[in-house]
Amino acid sequence: MNQQYPSQLLEKAVSEFAKLPGIGRKTAMRLVLHLLRQETTAVERFGQAIMTLRREVKYCKVCHNLSDTETCRICSHPGRDASTICVVETVRDVMAVEATQQFRGLYHVLGGVISPMDGIGPSDLQIESLVERVRTGNVKEVILALSSTMEGDTTNFFIFRKLAPLDVKMSVIARGISIGDELQYADEVTLGRSILNRTEFTGTI
Amino acid sequence: MNQQYPSQLLEKAVSEFAKLPGIGRKTAMRLVLHLLRQETTAVERFGQAIMTLRREVKYCKVCHNLSDTETCRICSHPGRDASTICVVETVRDVMAVEATQQFRGLYHVLGGVISPMDGIGPSDLQIESLVERVRTGNVKEVILALSSTMEGDTTNFFIFRKLAPLDVKMSVIARGISIGDELQYADEVTLGRSILNRTEFTGTI
Repeated sequence: MNQQYPSQLLEKAVSEFAKLPGIGRKTAMRLVLHLLRQETTAVERFGQAIMTLRREVKYCKVCHNLSDTETCRICSHPGRDASTICVVETVRDVMAVEATQQFRGLYHVLGGVISPMDGIGPSDLQIESLVERVRTGNVKEVILALSSTMEGDTTNFFIFRKLAPLDVKMSVIARGISIGDELQYADEVTLGRSILNRTEFTGTI
Repeated sequence: MNQQYPSQLLEKAVSEFAKLPGIGRKTAMRLVLHLLRQETTAVERFGQAIMTLRREVKYCKVCHNLSDTETCRICSHPGRDASTICVVETVRDVMAVEATQQFRGLYHVLGGVISPMDGIGPSDLQIESLVERVRTGNVKEVILALSSTMEGDTTNFFIFRKLAPLDVKMSVIARGISIGDELQYADEVTLGRSILNRTEFTGTI
């Protein structure tokens, strides 16, 4: 459809929004028109927040998570257990694990998983620095918390081989039936695995 | 879920994105992380495009459409028929009608429709300036192209009464079965109207 924009400024703003993933030109137009109805100061706040983030945000030099400081809040927290490292793909995974309030160790953010299809090899990820952390620090356990996909499994195995020569315990997060799920709706691979990896029942879950 | 953001800059950017209509915090996070993976210059371009639009875009003093200039491209185009005015709600409607390439007149952008539920009365819309255009200009026909809703119909009627004393032809866009639609799927109100408002058939549509 040959949609002629009445203003080049408008077209430029819509084009920029439409570059975002999952945002088409119609949605972009809707968002831009929404911003046009806001106060100038509110729009400035929006633009500045994003530009400041891109310019000033840091990556923690220990775990590579996003941070406002050289070393992130978690890595510099005295109450966290530095001998346990949970390896995750992204910032979002750190937030997801933190939200469970079940983990008091530190993290290591790989920045993705090995995926030859997407041209992502081990050297594109923070794997060497993980090995270095384990080699030089007092790390007792590395918990692999990657996606339960072929790429995640490949990466798990790669890290396993890299860390095997070092004296460190390695574990993967449990895979099985989600809490609240009914068995009839679980996929057969998950169900099969959850039977193989059954845990001893001692009266309580 | 108590999602603790690892960076305040990140949280601020996500909050700003999440203010946009239809964008929740999860989508906002995804968009912000996407922007973080882009070059700084690309992110600056994004932010500046939106801020510049908000600061510099104008509303055409004739038709109130968005414009880069005092008078918009359509209103100042010598080839357009200034005696026909198509009344629409928003900028998007101008673009939609333009995309049909079936209209060579000018527009008048109301900025919405009368909607007591949303607190929008006639004085919040560009109705007075429409009356003024018709009164002072050489306007022969006003085409009402508003939404086919109760609010649109109310606004049509309001404009009709305002323009009735003036010597101008008024028309509304045709409502009926969409081109390509099968009758069995049309709603009964539309189908009923399209039978009442049937047009003479002369061998071609």
